[in-house]
Amino acid sequence: MRVSVPATIANFGPGFDVFGLCLEKPRDFIRVKLSDEIEVKVEGYKVPEEPDKNVASVSALSLLRQAGVESGFKMKIKKGIRPKSGLGSSGASALGGALAVARLLDIDDKEIILRAALEGEKVASGSPHGDNIVPALFGGFVVLKSLFPLEVFKIDAKLKLVVILPEVEVSTKRAREVLPKHVPLSDAVRNLALASSLVLALENGDIEEVGKLLDDYLAMPYRKPLIPWFDKIRKAALENGAYGVSISGSGPAVFALGENLDEIGRAIVGAFEEERINAEYFISKVGGGAE
Amino acid sequence: MRVSVPATIANFGPGFDVFGLCLEKPRDFIRVKLSDEIEVKVEGYKVPEEPDKNVASVSALSLLRQAGVESGFKMKIKKGIRPKSGLGSSGASALGGALAVARLLDIDDKEIILRAALEGEKVASGSPHGDNIVPALFGGFVVLKSLFPLEVFKIDAKLKLVVILPEVEVSTKRAREVLPKHVPLSDAVRNLALASSLVLALENGDIEEVGKLLDDYLAMPYRKPLIPWFDKIRKAALENGAYGVSISGSGPAVFALGENLDEIGRAIVGAFEEERINAEYFISKVGGGAE
Repeated sequence: MRVSVPATIANFGPGFDVFGLCLEKPRDFIRVKLSDEIEVKVEGYKVPEEPDKNVASVSALSLLRQAGVESGFKMKIKKGIRPKSGLGSSGASALGGALAVARLLDIDDKEIILRAALEGEKVASGSPHGDNIVPALFGGFVVLKSLFPLEVFKIDAKLKLVVILPEVEVSTKRAREVLPKHVPLSDAVRNLALASSLVLALENGDIEEVGKLLDDYLAMPYRKPLIPWFDKIRKAALENGAYGVSISGSGPAVFALGENLDEIGRAIVGAFEEERINAEYFISKVGGGAE
Repeated sequence: MRVSVPATIANFGPGFDVFGLCLEKPRDFIRVKLSDEIEVKVEGYKVPEEPDKNVASVSALSLLRQAGVESGFKMKIKKGIRPKSGLGSSGASALGGALAVARLLDIDDKEIILRAALEGEKVASGSPHGDNIVPALFGGFVVLKSLFPLEVFKIDAKLKLVVILPEVEVSTKRAREVLPKHVPLSDAVRNLALASSLVLALENGDIEEVGKLLDDYLAMPYRKPLIPWFDKIRKAALENGAYGVSISGSGPAVFALGENLDEIGRAIVGAFEEERINAEYFISKVGGGAE
């Protein structure tokens, strides 16, 4: 069984822990066949090959356990999504491992697949959360209302965006730790207004409006110290025609909407370089999810 | 100039201070002609007739001042929306006064009208807020992203609802005072998920889903002590087929969605009566706004 799982953008502006958007690329490719042994091989970006440390393998094992099937597997991973980039790299691998085994066993139940994938994700990030796995599974733009029971609203958003990948690391764990337990009610209301408006703008295909609504008062203010370069990147993007720009997940990847995505991408890469950070950009459509 | 302005439902479940829905009825009717004197007459529900205390008159005066026109007016109000009911009664009168004078002076600018209406609303509620005035002006279902500058997203929602009006009072001022300055981040996220989902469900015309999403973690938990009867009313509504039920604004009016609205209305009136509170119900479509 071969599956390919794409990168995803969690949060997507005001939708902290709720919105997720599926990209078309980059992708992880995972090949699995049942076997007596357990063997994991990795090409591409480097991730652990130990079966209890590899995210895809952990979620594959979890799915086998849930299904009550005693078997091992041989797994080959072509890791195309850079780990710790903020593009749901561990979520994609976790989903891939679970999905490949589920398909081998003819299991279609999305909740079982998600439960297994979350166990894999937990190995990488410490806390299981679904805002990368769910959009990678469903494709499009998703509003994750609830994980268990699974309640997802999906928009088949048609848009292109530019993603900029700087060579810095932002610890997902640290990005969680800096968040306060309580936030001002006024900020909760502002995000709620932005998020509801963004969903409508997206549904109406008004990409310029979507870009303008890419703001966040719930996580961004507290995470600013972890991404001290963000204001300069934002300024460069807006000065070069971006409708809006935001952090993918907890970063460091940045994405922007606009007309001339190449120009915006080059401008942001330039702004990173002024901060002595190497960066590259790519352009992707919204994707249809794991295959 | 004659205008009629309908009742409105602020908050509408998870959309605290952001969502507003315009009803078709009840309505306030306001008749204004410019004059040397200032005179206010009220029929229907009782509200002050002193020009500096009557909400419609204050907003009419504010509009004249903003337009730089020195004039008085004679105003007749047929007050059809019960004051302090939670259905935007003061907001409707405030908008009516401002709108009638604006039309007399050929002023179309919505921000000028809103600014004047907010001054009227302030007289009644202490704090100016737009979540009744804006849906009463625009009609339909609105997401109020920002008041100044005015940024509103509108959904032409097609739905009917039952509104139940109990004979109790909930002080809007007190309902504001009980709110905390800070709320748990997890509650902010839950409301954001509900609100975004609700907007999508409404856009897709899935009224049953809209009903299920009528929950709120930002204001409701703190306002429960002011509406001790709410849980029993909710139970009666759901047991009688309601998709969902919520408080209109800060109450006491309650609204519900469902198939058999008469049956739900009677059940809720019955539940109020068990709490020794008289109540009546009416059924309304979503309305098109002030006329």
